Formats: sequence, C-alpha cells, structure tokens
Amino acid sequence: MLIIMNAQANQKQIDAIVKRADALGLQAHLSQGAERTVIGVIGDTRPVVRGQFQRMAGVREVVPITKPYKLASREFQPQDTAFSIDGFRVGGPQIVIIAGPCSVESRSQIVETAHAVREAGAHALRGGAFKPRTSPYSFQGLGVAGLELLAEAREETGLPIVTEVMAPEKVELVAQYADVLQIGARNMQNYPLLHAVGESRHPVLLKRGLSSTLDELLMSAEYILSHGNRRVMLCERGIRTYETATRNTTDINAIPVLKSRTHLPVILDPSHSTGHWEYVAAVARAGVAAGADGLIIEVHPDPAQALSDGAQSLKPERFAKLVQQIAAIAQAIGRGLVTPAPLPVM
Amino acid sequence: MLIIMNAQANQKQIDAIVKRADALGLQAHLSQGAERTVIGVIGDTRPVVRGQFQRMAGVREVVPITKPYKLASREFQPQDTAFSIDGFRVGGPQIVIIAGPCSVESRSQIVETAHAVREAGAHALRGGAFKPRTSPYSFQGLGVAGLELLAEAREETGLPIVTEVMAPEKVELVAQYADVLQIGARNMQNYPLLHAVGESRHPVLLKRGLSSTLDELLMSAEYILSHGNRRVMLCERGIRTYETATRNTTDINAIPVLKSRTHLPVILDPSHSTGHWEYVAAVARAGVAAGADGLIIEVHPDPAQALSDGAQSLKPERFAKLVQQIAAIAQAIGRGLVTPAPLPVM
Amino acid sequence: MLIIMNAQANQKQIDAIVKRADALGLQAHLSQGAERTVIGVIGDTRPVVRGQFQRMAGVREVVPITKPYKLASREFQPQDTAFSIDGFRVGGPQIVIIAGPCSVESRSQIVETAHAVREAGAHALRGGAFKPRTSPYSFQGLGVAGLELLAEAREETGLPIVTEVMAPEKVELVAQYADVLQIGARNMQNYPLLHAVGESRHPVLLKRGLSSTLDELLMSAEYILSHGNRRVMLCERGIRTYETATRNTTDINAIPVLKSRTHLPVILDPSHSTGHWEYVAAVARAGVAAGADGLIIEVHPDPAQALSDGAQSLKPERFAKLVQQIAAIAQAIGRGLVTPAPLPVM
Amino acid sequence: MLIIMNAQANQKQIDAIVKRADALGLQAHLSQGAERTVIGVIGDTRPVVRGQFQRMAGVREVVPITKPYKLASREFQPQDTAFSIDGFRVGGPQIVIIAGPCSVESRSQIVETAHAVREAGAHALRGGAFKPRTSPYSFQGLGVAGLELLAEAREETGLPIVTEVMAPEKVELVAQYADVLQIGARNMQNYPLLHAVGESRHPVLLKRGLSSTLDELLMSAEYILSHGNRRVMLCERGIRTYETATRNTTDINAIPVLKSRTHLPVILDPSHSTGHWEYVAAVARAGVAAGADGLIIEVHPDPAQALSDGAQSLKPERFAKLVQQIAAIAQAIGRGLVTPAPLPVM
Repeated sequence: MLIIMNAQANQKQIDAIVKRADALGLQAHLSQGAERTVIGVIGDTRPVVRGQFQRMAGVREVVPITKPYKLASREFQPQDTAFSIDGFRVGGPQIVIIAGPCSVESRSQIVETAHAVREAGAHALRGGAFKPRTSPYSFQGLGVAGLELLAEAREETGLPIVTEVMAPEKVELVAQYADVLQIGARNMQNYPLLHAVGESRHPVLLKRGLSSTLDELLMSAEYILSHGNRRVMLCERGIRTYETATRNTTDINAIPVLKSRTHLPVILDPSHSTGHWEYVAAVARAGVAAGADGLIIEVHPDPAQALSDGAQSLKPERFAKLVQQIAAIAQAIGRGLVTPAPLPVM
Repeated sequence: MLIIMNAQANQKQIDAIVKRADALGLQAHLSQGAERTVIGVIGDTRPVVRGQFQRMAGVREVVPITKPYKLASREFQPQDTAFSIDGFRVGGPQIVIIAGPCSVESRSQIVETAHAVREAGAHALRGGAFKPRTSPYSFQGLGVAGLELLAEAREETGLPIVTEVMAPEKVELVAQYADVLQIGARNMQNYPLLHAVGESRHPVLLKRGLSSTLDELLMSAEYILSHGNRRVMLCERGIRTYETATRNTTDINAIPVLKSRTHLPVILDPSHSTGHWEYVAAVARAGVAAGADGLIIEVHPDPAQALSDGAQSLKPERFAKLVQQIAAIAQAIGRGLVTPAPLPVM
Repeated sequence: MLIIMNAQANQKQIDAIVKRADALGLQAHLSQGAERTVIGVIGDTRPVVRGQFQRMAGVREVVPITKPYKLASREFQPQDTAFSIDGFRVGGPQIVIIAGPCSVESRSQIVETAHAVREAGAHALRGGAFKPRTSPYSFQGLGVAGLELLAEAREETGLPIVTEVMAPEKVELVAQYADVLQIGARNMQNYPLLHAVGESRHPVLLKRGLSSTLDELLMSAEYILSHGNRRVMLCERGIRTYETATRNTTDINAIPVLKSRTHLPVILDPSHSTGHWEYVAAVARAGVAAGADGLIIEVHPDPAQALSDGAQSLKPERFAKLVQQIAAIAQAIGRGLVTPAPLPVM
Repeated sequence: MLIIMNAQANQKQIDAIVKRADALGLQAHLSQGAERTVIGVIGDTRPVVRGQFQRMAGVREVVPITKPYKLASREFQPQDTAFSIDGFRVGGPQIVIIAGPCSVESRSQIVETAHAVREAGAHALRGGAFKPRTSPYSFQGLGVAGLELLAEAREETGLPIVTEVMAPEKVELVAQYADVLQIGARNMQNYPLLHAVGESRHPVLLKRGLSSTLDELLMSAEYILSHGNRRVMLCERGIRTYETATRNTTDINAIPVLKSRTHLPVILDPSHSTGHWEYVAAVARAGVAAGADGLIIEVHPDPAQALSDGAQSLKPERFAKLVQQIAAIAQAIGRGLVTPAPLPVM
C-alpha cells in the first residue's frame, strides 16, 4: 500500500508511520518530493492494517496497490479454470447454455420446458424452487416439492439442474437435488451462505449483486474458494443504474474485465440483465461476442401465464432460434457450443 | 392497475383482457381514446396477477397504481408508530441517539466506549459481534464472546444494545443478548432472515440496502411486519452512486419521503452514509433538521487502532460536541432529545 | 395521459379535473373503482399541460402514456432511416466503421492514422479539433488548424471526416470542413447547439450524455429533426455508474432498445464506453452482435504519446485485426461491412 | 503522481520511466518492494503528462496525488471567498435566500412573486427567461421579454436578479439585466460558456451537472476562475441515481465535502434536488444544518398553473413559513440570515 502524506506533514509524523510499519513487520520506503512525501509499505497489508494507518497524524490517503483477492485472481492462476458438470465442461473453449423457467410451477411445466430447451440445444436446466421475492405476498416457490420436480425433469431429459439456495441451513438439502447451486444477486454478500456453499463441494453459479463492483464479486468468489470449493462460475446479470428503459443495465464490459482479472468461467444472464424478452436475443449474442463462457436464459412454455418473470421469458421456439444465432457467433470468434449429451434411455 | 394497450391493439385483444379480468374476479373499466385504450382493473392485483396481463396480445404496459405494501403504509396507519426500548421511546416527538464502535474488539474498548457515549448523551449502544466483511481475510467479529461483552457494557451503563444478526439460525442466540436486532444493508433482501426476525418479537433496526429503492425498503419492512413483528425502525445509511468523494451518498430526501409513506420511525446513520468522520457532524445535523427520529453514529475511543471503520468513527469528545449541536437543531424544529435513563446502581 | 386520483379524492375534485380538460380542449374518460378513480385524458398532452393537472386537488400522479418524441419515433416512421455520407451509406444493412485519433495533434499524426485506418478497412476518419476537456489546463485541441489538417487527411485518403462542434456560433465554420458534425456527450442537452446543427443540414453524430436516459437522447435527436435535419445518427458511448473498473459502463441494452424505439441509425463507441484499449475489441464485437449499425473507434499510431485518451486508443495493427473480427460477426448475423471507397487518385 | 508498475515489470522498463521523467523535467523517486516497484514523480504533472506514462511498458496504473484544480482549492486559498451582490454578501457568516419562479411567465406573475418572496425574507429573485427544456415542444421561456420583466421586478422590489444564460454569445445580453449569471446543470461542462462567463466579471451561480462528481464541479469552477472571474457560487441541485421516489437525489454530503475542498460559497437548491414541493422544506432545513451558505428555492403564486416545474414550487405562504424555520436552524448553528435591504423608494 501507499501512504500519501499531507503537504503539511512533518518529519515526526513521517517517522511515526515508519515506526508503526516496523512494529507490524512491514517495510516502509520513503519517496520524499517537493510537495509531499509518499511512503510505500510492503508486506502483508490486509484491510485491517490499512485502516490503522489511515487515521495517523499527517496521513492524507492510504491507497491499496494489490487486489484484495488471491485465489480468484488470474495473477495467482494464469490458466482458465474449467470443470465438468454431469457430462459437459464449463470454462473450456466451448460455450454452455443453461435454460429454463424462472420458477418451477408444476410437473408438466418443468418437464415440458426441459424437453423443449434440450431439443433446442441447452446443456442444463434452470428453475427456482426457493424464490427470493421483493414482496411477502408474491409466489415464493414450491420449495422441496419444486426440487423433486426438477429431479424428475433431469431423469427424463438428462439435463443437469441449476437452482438457487437462499439460506446456509438449506445448502445440504438443495445439494441433494441440484447439480449447480445458484447464489442469487440479493445474496452475493450473504457471507454465512457463501461459507456454506464453500464447504459443499458442489459447483456454484455466483450472481453479481445488483450494485456490486466487479472486485466485490471477486471477493465473494474468494469466500467460496477460500472455504475449499474451486468450482465457481461468475454470472453478470445486469446492474442497477438510473436508466429505466430496461429492468437492469447489462454491464457488457464486465465480461472482458472479469476474463482479464480472474481464471473463473464467466456466464451472462441476458434475461435479468434486460428484463424484456424482446431484448434478450440481442444481448445474448453480444455476451458471446464479448467472450462469455456461457449463457443462462429464461424460457417458459407460456410466458403470459408464468407465476414470475413472464415479461423476460422466451418461448421455446424463439429460444431455439437464438441457440442457432449463438452457435453462429461462437463460430465467428473461433469457439463452438458444448455438444449436448444424448437423451437418457428410460 | 392500469393496462395500457398498444395504439394498434384490436377489439379482440381488448375483449380478451376484460375476459381474463372477469375470470380472476376483477373488474375492468375501459377508457377508449383516439390514440389508444386504457383498461383500469380493480380488485386484488398482486404482482403475480399483473405479470399475467403483461404478456397478453396488444398490451403495451401494465402500471400498478397501489403501493405493494400495506402494513408499512401510512395510508394503512396514519398515526406514527412509536415503541419502547428498555426505558426510552422511539418514534415519538423526541430524538434518539444510538452510538458505539463498529465492532466489539475487547472488554475495555466496549465498556469504555459505552461509558463515554452514555456521558455524552447517547440512549443506546451499538457494536458488532458478527460482522459482514467484504473480504474473507478481514476481522469477522468476536461472535458470541462479543455478545457477552455487549451484555457487560449494558450492565455497567444501563444502555440497551443494538447489534447485527446475519443468519436466520442465529436470531434466537443474538436476541438473548440484544435489545434491538439490526439487519444490515447487505441483508435487506435476505428473506429467510427477515422472516426469522419477523417472528422474534424483538425490536428491529432495518438498514436500507446499498442500492435499494425506498419502496423496496418498505417491502422488506413489510416482510417483518407481516410475520407479526410491528417494532421496526428504518435506517437510511447512504446509497451507492457514481460519486467517490464519500463512501456512500446520503439520500437525505429519503427522510421526508419515508416519513410521508410510512408510520415507522426513521433513523439516519451518518457514519456509513459519509464514510469520513469529518463529514459526520454536518450530515447528522442535516438528518435531524430533515425530520429523522434518531441517529446511529460510530464512536471509537481510538479510531486509528480500530479493527474496522476507523476512518468514519468519531472520538468521544467530538461525539459529545455533536450531541449538543443535535440538541440545538432538535429544539429549533420543536423537538428535543430523549431524556437519558439514570446510571444503574451497581 | 392518466390522472390517478388519491384514494380520498372527492367528486368535486374529480369534476374539476374533467372541467379543466374540457377547457383545454381535451377529452376525459373516467374509470371509477372501489379504491380510487383514474381519469384518462386524450388529446394534445404535452408536458406543460401535464404539469397543470399535477398540482390540482386530489391528484396523486399524472402518468404520460405517449412518448414525448414523434419525428424520432419508430411509431411515426416504421422503416429505418438510412443516408449517404460522401459515398457510403449509414443505417442500411451494412455496418460502418469510423476510426481515428481522439485529437488531431499534427499533420503527420493525422495523415498517418488516416492511411492506417483506411487500409485496415475504416470508412470514415474521426479526429477532434475542438476538444471539450474537464481541465482548463489540458490540451484544448488545435482549433481551425486541426480542421485544416483533417481536410488534408481527407484529400489524401478519401475518408470523410467526423469531428466535434462545441458552440452554436462555430457550426458554420466546422461544417465547412466536416462531413459529419459530432455533438459530444457533454453537449447532448446544449439546446442552442442542437438548434444550430438542426438547421445546418449536415449529417450529425449525436452522442448520448453521460447520464442521459435513452428517451432523453431521443428528445435531443427530436430537437435536431424538428429543425429540419433528418440525417442523425445516435451514439451509445457508455454511461456513468458506480462501477470503476472501466471509465464508463457500456449500456449494450441501449442498442436493441434504440433499434425498437427509433428508425435512426445506432452507432457504438467502445473506446469511450470502456476507457481501456484491452476491452475495446470485446465490446466492439458485442455491439455489432447486438445490432449496432456502426462503430466509432479511437486509433492512434503511438498511444503512449497521445495528447489525449491514450489509454483507450488502439494501435493500427490491433485495429486491423479487430476489423476482421467485426466482419466475421457481421456475417454471422447476416450483415456485412460497407465496401470501402477506392483511394483517391492524387 | 505515482506510477505503479506491474509485478512482472523488469529493470529496463523501470529505467525507461525514470528516463522519460527526466526528459520532461520531473523527478522520479523509486520505492522498490518485494512485490512491485512504485515510482513517485514530482513536478508539474498535468493530465496530459500522466497519460504519457500510462501506456509505457510495465506500467499498471498512474495515480494522481494532487487535485487538478488550484484556484478553486482551499489549499490554495484557506479563507472563505465572500463577495457582494447588489447590497448583500454571499459566502460570509450569514445565509442567503434566493427565491422565485422557475420561468418568468408574465409581468403580474413575476412582480407579484417578487413582492411575495421579498416580504417573506428572500434576498434575491430567481426566474428563467431562457429555459433549457428536454422537449423542443415545451415552453422555452420568454427570452429578452423575460429579462425585461425581471428588470421591472427588481425596480419594484430592489431584489437583485439571478437568471440563466445558455450560450456564450448571449452572455453579454443577459449580463445587462442579471445581477448573477446562472449556469444550469446541463451546461456545467459547456466550456465555451464557462469561458465566456469567466470573462464577464459578473457573479456566477454554477450548478452541479446531473451526474458530475464534486471534483468535476470544481474543475468547471476552475475554468471560470482561471479566466479572471473570482465571484463564483457553487450549487448542489441533486444528482441522478437509481432512486425514483424523488426527481433527483440531494447529495447532502456535497455540502461538507465542498466546504472542505474549496473556499467558494455553497448554495443548495432543494426544489430541483427533490422535485416535489412536499419535500422542499425538510431538505432546505437540512442544507442549512449541513453548512450551506445559501438556498435557491422555487416559489410560484399558483403552482397548478405554472408553465414549468409546478410540482416542485412552493406557494408564497409556505415559503414564508420555511424562511422562519431556516432562520431558527441558522441560529441553532451560530449563523443567521442576511438582513434584507429596505424596499426601494419609488
């Protein structure tokens, strides 16, 4: 870290900084200029240590110069992380498509959708059993019954399941049914939950918080990684801005930024990041063109009847067309789609 | 809700809307103009119902015209909610001051601070035992040991305790020590947690999420109220904007807006909403002038040594001066400060 | 517009609304429900009229239901606007690439860059002669001398010129040299300037303001269109958000949203929208995949020596590679690049 | 500035930095640590110079450590700037209140309002003759006729006039009528206009741009100061955020931040910063409590009939009450209101 002194800081104040650095086992390097002194401090400078210099006399600002995450950083691991989810690979050269309804609503709805997205070319099925809803009066999901319906859909179609877990004490339960544990945007900084999925050893899809910076997203990934779980995908799902034309603002910059800062796979959710089905295809294509390793897309057989997120769900026919556009874009940048697994023999 | 049809919508599409409203037991009123038709739908129009109209043919937009919260709304309860916390009253004409360190660090630190803020005029003691930290490598709080130190500080000073709870399964534990359960900004939409504190019957301080709208804050309050707990205070603690001169942007407008939309007490946290001790006093005064029912302020006996939030903590002497300024502002608007309870006889 | 009455509004207040609507020559349609009354008002309901209802007794909210722009709207003109700029066509099926340095710095710099981007496949040359700079102490551009150097570069390469104009009284001057007048982000709501370029009949590249909504961008286009100039391109150049990993946040959603709301061509500026050359290629590809009609990209022969925006400028070699990627993406979505004009015979 | 090298930067790259610093007449100080090297560069490091280091090999980041403004900085001038406007003083211990309608609409409207705000205790009259309006179809102000009506109102009441100027070529005209030239939020970075008012020697009220940082506001003030005009007031008028409960978000933090960074007077505009008359009084009081040197408030004799901004205008009676509240708050913090000048003898 760099400790930037006030223009008026005196020698005694500078000496005190150096002395405290010594006491903490850190090395201080002085850069004394005409205007002000800057002190470079080398060693283990975690946030708490930084805070202790910030309030010392004569200090104007303390600037960290290393990123606060290690395990998630590409400096720490230059090669891409790739891992398998029940038969296909995330984070490799080929692009993964996860699709399905916002919520599991009924057996026929989830099984029908699973077949439809599988035929269109999806590699995994999404569907919420436990739903975080802004209103206590909105549909909160089917709970365990929803997990069981997801398991049935997997049995019939062979598609692995991506579903959200909302509380630390539910991680074990959800992990019995899910292939991938999703951490929703509202829970990106729910640390007891990150801790719990970190210990679960199940692959995790970690969604960016509504107004989280990319470094905060990486810090949340670091929580999971540091508890022993290395199979983490990051998901850009739009951020909150002043613009109201769309539900959120897709931060397309996030894709190249994350690909340069971390080795973890990066997924885009164009359904939440736009909030309108009319814009999903354009933004899905953009995501792949920008370098995303996968997409997660809401598909519903009858969006007008959906119990949640109907406005942003694609009908199966449109989704099928989109998969073909995605394949063409993937090819244009020298990638392809993951080859779907064969239908299970029943 | 209002269903605004496309300019091109035809009679058949309009009829379909009316028919579905009928089927759902709702009444539809048509307003047919030169340019387009608007259909007013009356009855129980919760979000899920709204979503079902949104995707019907010919529909341009569905606009809700009632707020999605009831129990939290001033339309529902015109008179202010006020309740007692261990001897003083929140939400009445008099203003409440909660003060203390970000984290409980040691017995001497918390007891010393408790005495100092009590002497300066504070009515309750804040202090974190379980700390949500962005980095897994930062100090995470003393946990149960911290709760016990808070209880000791209460015993010595008589100040009731405000402390954060981060997970639903910890609510019972924290409630054994705390007088007020704090829900932090990162957990404002942690619904299992809101559910759990809703059932606890302990007073709750609910902080606004980093990028939550005021209506979302009220929806989160609604979760707690609808589970049976009516003793909820709302806390503005700054929102995330593009401005980097301060840690957050204090949304001072939130105070009159909340006071007009809800009957619940409104508290301001100028420490988090500015992030710099130099700006805390100005913004604390502004909050009271704008109509806040209380303040929650970080005070630390030695900010330069604090394990968290040192940069935004006041020293006890400055805090004492601020309490006097607050009292003067309160008087100028026809209010006063809550009378502190006497020191307990040991 | 819809006038939503308070739940407590009485008949007299409702009658007053209807009466005022009549007085203004508008028709009012009542939709009286159990909870509240909503009045649909049909006719010419420009903002000023709306404001006059807003403060009437019993009114809760006035909701506009038509967009405030007409000439810019796709409802007004369903087919795409396309027009020619000195030999190539903007707004048609083929994609246009504008490239060049942030500022014109010297004859050799601008002519060298013009040749380089032309060989790489660019269709027009950008370069600033009048530069809006945050600091009065920064390089402010070469002014008229810069315009003359741009004209020389055009003569040598045949590339038409895109350059910024910052004040109404300079429009005539800049139009003598430029093929396209650029309105910068900071001037998107400089109405005297919009008025002036509206009267100039030169093609205009209108950049979105740093925190403008898409509807505000369209309103600014409406200013130009309503003064008689129909040759307007819109340019997404990133918006200001809380995220600091990039200079701005590319609002990729803006592309499909604008394409659905307006018939005007939509251009993306990935250099300003990211602020880092490393991210320019990914975001440029994303823009074309999302449906942009063109790109405007900063290219400098020696970015480390650039007098402005060096950090976001591509070297000519990288730009040449990017043009090939863009061509591949364009083909994948069934479009292509504009065929470059032949080099002028000197 | 500090040049932070990559962890992998080699000695040759470091030497090149030092060499370039030498060539530019700057001194470089090395701070070589275990992880990386940091080079402090002392001397005249304006943005353009900084940009030239940013793209050199091995450089990770260039961090400026001095603020880019000088004349506006409190480091440059520690004592408050105060100046007179036609009989009263801005920037001294006493608080100034500017009030009046958004737009000048008619003789009776502006003269009546001027009398009303004068009687209530206002010190200057605001009113727009040239109005920046989002829509080309909205009322654009009365122009010169409006300026003449303002002059009449001044003659009758003695109140000095604050009115907006929107184009450089109109500065001279507006200055013939106005006592204070207002630069509106949309023009905060209209540099030709800042240049022109900088040369005019008339007092200036500079409004913060809709999404400008405080440092950008100070840079815009620097433009005016550096062209010779030292009589500049800064005005916080709300910033654009995701919150839609109010028209803008009042950045109350801006007041103590500006007071610490600059010596210039700081004014708050609670009418634009909230957009709703119901919230104006609370936020006006907050502004004074936070340390603002003045307020600018919209007052209209009949807001329901106002041609612009009716929703946020106070009626004269409410304004009169507010002035009394402001006086009480001012007294509570040891300040007072400016003593109004006597009514002119006609």
